[in-house]
Order: sequence, then structure tokens, then C-alpha cells
Amino acid sequence: MPSTTISFARGAPSLDIVDVDGLRAAADRAFAKDPAGLTGYGKGTGYGPLREWIADQHDVDAEHVLLTNGSMQADAFLFDAVVASDDTVIVELPTYDRTLLSLRGRGADIRAVELESDGVDVAALERVLKTGAGPKLAHLIPNFQNPAGYTLSLAKRQQLVELARAYDFLIFEDDPYREVRFSGESLPTMLSLDTDPGRPGSGQHVVYASSFSKIVCPGIRVGYLVAQPELIAKIAKLAVNTYIAPNQVAQGIVNQFVRSEAFPASITKVKTELATRAAKLGEALNRELPDARFEVPEGGYFMWVELPKGTDVAALHAAAAERGVVFTKGTDFMLEGGEAALRLAYAGLTVPEIEEGVTRIADAYRSLAAPAVDAA
Amino acid sequence: MPSTTISFARGAPSLDIVDVDGLRAAADRAFAKDPAGLTGYGKGTGYGPLREWIADQHDVDAEHVLLTNGSMQADAFLFDAVVASDDTVIVELPTYDRTLLSLRGRGADIRAVELESDGVDVAALERVLKTGAGPKLAHLIPNFQNPAGYTLSLAKRQQLVELARAYDFLIFEDDPYREVRFSGESLPTMLSLDTDPGRPGSGQHVVYASSFSKIVCPGIRVGYLVAQPELIAKIAKLAVNTYIAPNQVAQGIVNQFVRSEAFPASITKVKTELATRAAKLGEALNRELPDARFEVPEGGYFMWVELPKGTDVAALHAAAAERGVVFTKGTDFMLEGGEAALRLAYAGLTVPEIEEGVTRIADAYRSLAAPAVDAA
Repeated sequence: MPSTTISFARGAPSLDIVDVDGLRAAADRAFAKDPAGLTGYGKGTGYGPLREWIADQHDVDAEHVLLTNGSMQADAFLFDAVVASDDTVIVELPTYDRTLLSLRGRGADIRAVELESDGVDVAALERVLKTGAGPKLAHLIPNFQNPAGYTLSLAKRQQLVELARAYDFLIFEDDPYREVRFSGESLPTMLSLDTDPGRPGSGQHVVYASSFSKIVCPGIRVGYLVAQPELIAKIAKLAVNTYIAPNQVAQGIVNQFVRSEAFPASITKVKTELATRAAKLGEALNRELPDARFEVPEGGYFMWVELPKGTDVAALHAAAAERGVVFTKGTDFMLEGGEAALRLAYAGLTVPEIEEGVTRIADAYRSLAAPAVDAA
Repeated sequence: MPSTTISFARGAPSLDIVDVDGLRAAADRAFAKDPAGLTGYGKGTGYGPLREWIADQHDVDAEHVLLTNGSMQADAFLFDAVVASDDTVIVELPTYDRTLLSLRGRGADIRAVELESDGVDVAALERVLKTGAGPKLAHLIPNFQNPAGYTLSLAKRQQLVELARAYDFLIFEDDPYREVRFSGESLPTMLSLDTDPGRPGSGQHVVYASSFSKIVCPGIRVGYLVAQPELIAKIAKLAVNTYIAPNQVAQGIVNQFVRSEAFPASITKVKTELATRAAKLGEALNRELPDARFEVPEGGYFMWVELPKGTDVAALHAAAAERGVVFTKGTDFMLEGGEAALRLAYAGLTVPEIEEGVTRIADAYRSLAAPAVDAA
């Protein structure tokens, strides 16, 4: 029995790629420069200077932005504001397990549309629209999707914005990984594609969400939405009634951090490390587990691995745990299916841990009976 | 027209009674001592060391404690866990406006029981219980109540715990002001009175809530619940599904602050200043507005002022605003009634501001027609 469990399950960075010194210095500046702003209740929309910074990033006015205690809280408010029980919501298949849980909890009629390696199957999504499904929202993770690691192509982004306009639904562009692209070219957000030329902030059909968990740190719990001011005002009211205002101290620290030289340096470090980890994970899988099919992602935290049809990943999960390695089963990200798939999160592991972890998974895989390809 | 509006409306401290230097130093120590704990996701129950510290304060084990992003978020989770639509909930009359709003939003059957200067009218509350109301929860603010400033007597605390046991309902002891008592003797919590001698944590009928907003600062947004571990576990699940975990950075800073010498020194400063402000407010009212009836509180942020029956406080509010002074109308804290009452929050104002503010309110009062005592 190995002494230390290696976890491919948690979508969190290892401490060595968090700029603790930069954060410590940012905290010091934040309290020194704006003691009233940090210590007072503040507004339900969040710490003003950070709201302005985010607005600038997306070329909108600040009233398009609302900060929350982590982006899952933003999702929850958005769903409370927009999705009633029995409303149709489109999600990707597979998708983030917490989003599925949150939508299920609200009684949404969830329609899952297959994810391809260049993003959601737009033709399949259009067929759902043509049945008159009339969705309120389509939840899409455009960059380095969780759990698949895939990225939505530019052509599909454009098609999706056209569909949202034609069928009048909201695209919920859930984009926490955008800044951690380590290869390939950055693609425009659907938020920007929905904007008419020369009219910043004019888009009506995209709500954008992101967070600082992947580019500052998760424990700081700062997420945000970018949307039309009317919707932001509605959500701000929900926020005030829930907690008066989100964390001003944390947002003040983020504000100082992102406006300093430490920020680009920190992102470079994160990207360099993640690129190495993703590449080494791919190499280890090719070497140790040749049955595995996967694409090495261009960014983000996750790799999706398909094993031969009939592989019992639930049994693999148990056999792997016995060998001191954990991952997340594909079924956790799907309403149905995914029995032969798994998600490997590599952001929290060093290269030696990744290599040892894959060795253990491969050993667990070999311990299973040969997959019964033709079984019912 | 006065150049600067004086606000008696906001329940927030002025910056001069917030220990910004102490917080700044605490932030520095927190990042230096526990970088992994501060920057990682952490647990839905909150930052471990602070959870332990709170548990020690209340003589319970840590599994009785859950930390949240401000105590209103704790209230919201508690209501979600315990109060279904049409469930009966007892509140004080008057009570905190945001609690009323939150309970109304959940469709609770709200029964308001008159507040006396020594706390809720226990005989009236017992009459409600005897009708078979079967409340799930009685929401009580025991110390320096918001909005009234009154404190629940020891005898009534004991009676309420007996009633909660006899009629099997939960007392929600909402206690953010406990540590800011500036005169008189501190009274035991109902949480402690519900505990059997020699059996720490044994009480079944009190859920305790408090926050660091009044003893550290509001912008840090750290609140907490103390309850039976089963209920805490249920609420932790709601918390994880809502936001994964509360703010670890903010809670790490609070943890360092409350364990340092800066903390007792800061509380002493807060209490000294609040005592002066409350006393000066009382003196100014006696001098400028002899029609006002009030009790100078023994702690906390608020003074409740009753004007002669028939006084139109809504009109007074408007006339005061014209003179550059705002307060909160009594009606905001009641399901009905309160038309001749107002709440004055003095924690955010200096003594000169308090004196000038009362002068303006008195001028506004004199500008109204004489109160029509016998009017319908």
C-alpha cells in the first residue's frame, strides 16, 4: 500500500504555482491604500476598483460587472435570476458536475448536447432548438472545458452567437480557464462576438462568468459575471439580500495583485508549469496505458481519457484507490453514459507525482478482467 | 442645505474604530504562516484554525461550528435547512429588517412577538405556543437588539430555553453584538444555558450565530453558526453546493487577528468609543428633542426612539433628509406599526456628527405640524 495518495481528482493548483509572496505584498498594499474600502461593507456588486478593472478587460462599463464570492456563487445567482423550475437549459455532455447538480436542484429540464474535441456539437444543438425546446440558457465552457479539456472553435463560437440571437436564448459563457492557455492561439469570447462593432457592451445574448481561482488562487474566492446592466442589477439585489456584499478584503487584495507586475509573471509561471504537466501526463499515458485515448489540452487543468468500450471505470476507480491514486469517473459529468471515461486533473501534481500516478492507474487497469466489448 | 449628509441609517463602524494596522499585520502573518491553507479551496465548513478558535469560545467541539461569508449567509443557509414554506417562525417586534425580508422570501408564517426593554415578551410568546403554533424557529437577538438596542434578561433567557425544550422548537440566537457591551454585566448565551452541566455541546434547542463584522470589520465578511453536528453537516452540504468553500483568505486573516494582542486592544477601543457615542446621543436627544423617549443601550450600535403617538415619522424622515440627515423608520422593522418610531445607528458617526445630526432631526421635527394625538 503506497504511503501517500496521489489525487488526479481535484481541480486546484499546487502551492508552488501560487504567488504567495505577490499576494502577501498585494494584501499589504490593499490595506495601506484603501483601508475604508477594504474594511467597510461595500456594495453588493463588489469592490469598485476591481469591478472597473474587469470591465476594462471586457470593454464594457462597470455596471455590466458583478463580483461574487467565487464563480459558483455567481452561477447560483444567475440561475436563481433566470432559470425557473421546468425551464429548459442546454448543457454540454460531459460537463462540470457542480453545474449539473445546481441545475438539477432548481428543477431545470436539462438537455445535454454532445461535446466534440472542437466544442459542443452545434448541429445537434440546433436540432434541439428546432424541436421548439425554447431554452432559457445554454451553459458552455469554451476554453479547456471541465472535464474534457476541449476548446470551442472560433467558427462554432460565431455559429452559437447567431443561434442565440435567432432563437433568443442566453449563452452562459463559463470561462474560468481562459488565461491559462499554454499553446495555440487565444480565441475571442462569445461575449465579444455578440457585441455590435463600435458599440461596446451592446450584446444581449451572452452572460460571461469567470474567476480568479486559476490565475490568483482558489482560497481568495473571487468570481464575477459580465452581462447587461438590467440583469446585473437584478442579480445584485439577490446578492444584497443573501449576504449584503461579497468579500471586500479579498477583492481588494485581488485588485492590487492584478494591477501589479507580479500578475503577468505569475500567469507565465502557471502556464509554463501546466504545459509541462499536461505534456508529461500525455507521455506517461502513451507509455503506460496505450489503450487510453485522449487529446493533450492547449490549456487548463484537465485531461479527458477514454478507455476501450466496456471498460468498467467504476471498478478501475476502486482498484486505483487501493493502489493510492484517485481520479474522477466520467459518469460524474454526464446525465447518462461515460462508463468507460475518466477525468485526470493535473494542475495540482508535480511531474514525478503524475508519472507515479499513471503507473498506478495502469497497474489497476491491468488488474481488471479484459474489457467485455460485446457485453450488454 | 448642509453640504454633508449625516447618516444614522447604517449599522457600520466608522473607520477610526477599525484596527487597520492590526489587520494589515494579521494578513501578513496569515500568508506567511499558512500559505497552503489560505490559498487552497479549503472546506465548506471554513478555515480550520478559526473554526477551532470559535469552538473553544463556546466550549464545543469544532464539528459544532460552520463559518460563512458573513452571518447573513449563515442565516440564509439555516433558513434553507430548517424553514419550509408555511412553517411558523417567531420573530421579535421590531426586528432586523433583512431577517424579515429573508423569512418572507421563503414563505414563512411569521409571528411577531412584542419586544420589551428586557427582551421579548416571554408570556406573549408562550401564549402563541399554547395556540399550537408549533414554530420551527424563534429568531431572537439577545444583546443590544437591532433595531431596539434592548438586551434580553437572564431570567427570560432561562425561560426561553425551557420553552424551546418543552415545545421542541429551535431558538435562533442571533448575537453579533455580544462583544461590544460597554456597560453592565455580560449575560450567558442561551446556547450555554441549553447545555447540560458537565456535557459540553449537549444542547439541542439553540442555534447560535455571530460574526466578526462588529469586532474586526464588516468588509472581512466572516460569520458563523454553532449548532448540533448533524445540522452543521446538513448546512455544510448546502454551502459546498453553493460556493464550494467560504473565503479562506479572509478567515485566515481573522484567525491571526483574534489570536493576537491587537484583538483585545481593538475591542476595548471600540467599546470606549461606542459608549461615548451612545451617551452623547442620549444627551443630545434630551437637550434638543425632549419629546423623544428612549433608553441608552448598554452596548451595540443602535438606539430606538419613540416619538409621541401620532407623530408621522415618514414625514419626519423626508423633512430630515431635506436638512441633510437620514435615519431608519420604525416601520422598516415591523410587519405593522412603528409609525411613530425610528432607529438611530450611532456607531458610524463621530460625536460632533451625532450632535449636529440630532440638531437637524429636532429642527425637522419642529417643522412638522403638531402631532394629531386623536387622529384615526
